[in-house]
Amino acid sequence: MVTTRLPSAGFSITIRIAVTADASSIGRLTTCVGEAGAIVTALDVVDSNPTQVLVDLTCDTADSGHADQVVKQLEEQDGVDVRKVSDRTFLLHLGGKIEVSSKVALRNRDELSRAYTPGVARVCMAIAENPADARRLTIKRNTVAVVSDGSAVLGLGNIGPAAAMPVMEGKAALFKRFGGVDAWPVVLDTQDTDEIVRIVKAIAPAYGGINLEDIAAPRCFEIEARLREQLDIPVFHDDQHGTAICVLAALTNALRVVGKRLQDVRVVVSGAGAAGTAIMKLLLRQGVGDIIAYDRKGALHRGMPDLTPNWQWLAEHTNKANFVGDLPGAIEGADVFIGVSAPNLLTGADIAKMADRSIVFALANPDPEVDPREARQHAAVVATGRSDQPNQINNVLAFPGVFRGMLDVSAEEFTEEMALAAARAIADVVGEDKINPTVIVPSVFDPKVTPAVAAAIRAVVRGGHAPHNPAAVPEAELDAAPEETF
Amino acid sequence: MVTTRLPSAGFSITIRIAVTADASSIGRLTTCVGEAGAIVTALDVVDSNPTQVLVDLTCDTADSGHADQVVKQLEEQDGVDVRKVSDRTFLLHLGGKIEVSSKVALRNRDELSRAYTPGVARVCMAIAENPADARRLTIKRNTVAVVSDGSAVLGLGNIGPAAAMPVMEGKAALFKRFGGVDAWPVVLDTQDTDEIVRIVKAIAPAYGGINLEDIAAPRCFEIEARLREQLDIPVFHDDQHGTAICVLAALTNALRVVGKRLQDVRVVVSGAGAAGTAIMKLLLRQGVGDIIAYDRKGALHRGMPDLTPNWQWLAEHTNKANFVGDLPGAIEGADVFIGVSAPNLLTGADIAKMADRSIVFALANPDPEVDPREARQHAAVVATGRSDQPNQINNVLAFPGVFRGMLDVSAEEFTEEMALAAARAIADVVGEDKINPTVIVPSVFDPKVTPAVAAAIRAVVRGGHAPHNPAAVPEAELDAAPEETF
Repeated sequence: MVTTRLPSAGFSITIRIAVTADASSIGRLTTCVGEAGAIVTALDVVDSNPTQVLVDLTCDTADSGHADQVVKQLEEQDGVDVRKVSDRTFLLHLGGKIEVSSKVALRNRDELSRAYTPGVARVCMAIAENPADARRLTIKRNTVAVVSDGSAVLGLGNIGPAAAMPVMEGKAALFKRFGGVDAWPVVLDTQDTDEIVRIVKAIAPAYGGINLEDIAAPRCFEIEARLREQLDIPVFHDDQHGTAICVLAALTNALRVVGKRLQDVRVVVSGAGAAGTAIMKLLLRQGVGDIIAYDRKGALHRGMPDLTPNWQWLAEHTNKANFVGDLPGAIEGADVFIGVSAPNLLTGADIAKMADRSIVFALANPDPEVDPREARQHAAVVATGRSDQPNQINNVLAFPGVFRGMLDVSAEEFTEEMALAAARAIADVVGEDKINPTVIVPSVFDPKVTPAVAAAIRAVVRGGHAPHNPAAVPEAELDAAPEETF
Repeated sequence: MVTTRLPSAGFSITIRIAVTADASSIGRLTTCVGEAGAIVTALDVVDSNPTQVLVDLTCDTADSGHADQVVKQLEEQDGVDVRKVSDRTFLLHLGGKIEVSSKVALRNRDELSRAYTPGVARVCMAIAENPADARRLTIKRNTVAVVSDGSAVLGLGNIGPAAAMPVMEGKAALFKRFGGVDAWPVVLDTQDTDEIVRIVKAIAPAYGGINLEDIAAPRCFEIEARLREQLDIPVFHDDQHGTAICVLAALTNALRVVGKRLQDVRVVVSGAGAAGTAIMKLLLRQGVGDIIAYDRKGALHRGMPDLTPNWQWLAEHTNKANFVGDLPGAIEGADVFIGVSAPNLLTGADIAKMADRSIVFALANPDPEVDPREARQHAAVVATGRSDQPNQINNVLAFPGVFRGMLDVSAEEFTEEMALAAARAIADVVGEDKINPTVIVPSVFDPKVTPAVAAAIRAVVRGGHAPHNPAAVPEAELDAAPEETF
């Protein structure tokens, strides 16, 4: 039971083709591409003469193998000469996806002398005398480090720091696009916990927050915990907290749809790594009825030998009935299934055995724990991590607003209260009048999301529920007229 | 003997003043400011009524103390009410001077799926399979880390990483403005040599070069040497190599002006720290006649006890006559004095004792080793590091072009050949028809400088005189049509 992949823009190619110039030649090209299962998205004539036309045909394909096959089928056509094939995704990444821009003009000696020597010396001395001024007078105010050791990148595994860069650059681009946050990729050529903690601590003075990304469990838990203890800026592990916030937001609305209350439901979570653990902790904090955590060793329960500290904690705090058994057995009668694990662990028949009006979040990417089309036959609400299915649960809903809010008020710590508030804010963006089984989360392009999340975070800090730096500068200041203080 | 500081834009303030609305009131303000020694650069009427005018008066002052005095003298005027004083330099630094920008549009799901998941996964895998592709598909291609531990920031000393940020951000802004290079400040909350080496090595995968900045000697020498050995990207310490390149460029042209040859001249260098050492090594490499190195211990000579390895090397390779004595004694009869040390070590009378047609580079900032106005009474060519004097020797002439060139050809190492080529390129920008005692270096705003330096660096690499990555991508590629390879 394999989910058939559909053509997507992530696998879009542009094929330069010379064809004979008869009335139907271009029509034959698009027909051929369509028959090969790809979707033509653009067709541009590059050049022509009385007997030949040169065109750039762009189409979405399902994956690299499919793209090769589309090209092969084109080449087999009479009168068709494939000149070159460009992968639009690779073209987009050429030279990297982010850049550093100067916010100050450097047109003449006067401007140079204010932005750099000799003027800059006074700004340095002001910070040396009053370290809190770093948040006013440097990029610390709006800048986050996106830190990864490349050990658990997307679903690709331990591909190392250099190969992790395209993801971290993409993350930085998303931070700016969706949250107005300046984020910088910090990929580390070490996977030693002590070393990572020391390095992040050493580079921290430049940053107003740390976003840990794609660091393998269980190392990520220790790194996060130690950094939170040692740093006076918030440390957020997006794979954990970003996912947990989005899942809680989606679950809040899914429960509204099916008319159940969180404290009454039994949840089965497949995958007790970074994401699964954070999801379960947040659900427990929010008062969920019961959870069974499922991982490679089976259902986590009291009395299991040789558990990591993280799994031990989960075994002690979940699984009220101390269920022991396989995953299909665990979800019998369960109200909610949340998968953050591996593809194709369950069938439609398994989902059919869940409680009435069940909720299925099958978030493994790109192939979910259960085919969402099969799941929808039996569950009342189905969500995935895929952009080509309804109810995409995407961390972009959370992290830009969370950091926007934390930076705005110089938060010194990311807290569980913030996570709960952010989840509530995301859920509430979907109004009572919009909510239904296929719309439990807002679109990532909904411009209301980030401001709502940021406002919720600021409210937590201002309400005194999270530590922050008293030197925090009100948002209005940067736009204000010259300040008396300077 | 103190050099009087002149008003400069680095100490520009804007004073909001309410004055009585009589015909000469504003004239009295500007007169008062002028008499206080400041220079009015702008006067804007903000508001007015029949009896009063509110104006913003902007003026350059000499330093913070002078600014206070100007304000005080204004306040003492009849009918003048100073409402607030803004320091334009501080205003410019509010919120920091650089930002991270996305080079890719993220307007819709298609664009998101190419820049981020799922499309990005293929780009990651391409790099995992062929690490050299990091230079094509990530920001490594054009990005440099500006690394400092904050231990020797400008002339301010050991002010630490947070207070060093305004300088490092400024450097990044200059890198972009003058070299099109994306530079990112990496300030480190550690001053341990081993730790700094480990950290820079760990963060290196994201970068195409390392620019060390404002790290105290002698630690900087070991850090640089070890990083050069361990990294496959160029490591450049601007305080050393940038300064040495600019000094050699200026000296080349100064010698043209006075009609002497480098191999015939005796040079006295005051200051054998990072800058002085690099200057002397480059001059020796270029075949200078003789050098006497002068530092806190006096003239470095053979037989001195307890020298650092660096000073020991200098003692062995300079001072042919093994001169022992004070600085004024050392420069008697010398052709060239180069100061990279401390203010006011010499008088005009000392300079008078140098050889005929002598050259004086007094580069201590902001106050030079000798008052340049006194030096000019006796020397044929005088240069300083100050922007308000002729012949400013400024590292901005070198580092943007050096890194532009190294990145263009994926250089793996910065070499002495590159330094010599860069110095020659800078010197040659001042044409034979332009050169004279007050113009031995081009203006930092001369648009010919960076391209000339970059071309010189590329020529060294392409001529086979420096290691580089064979995966180097020709500059034209990024603008080229879709590539067959992708």
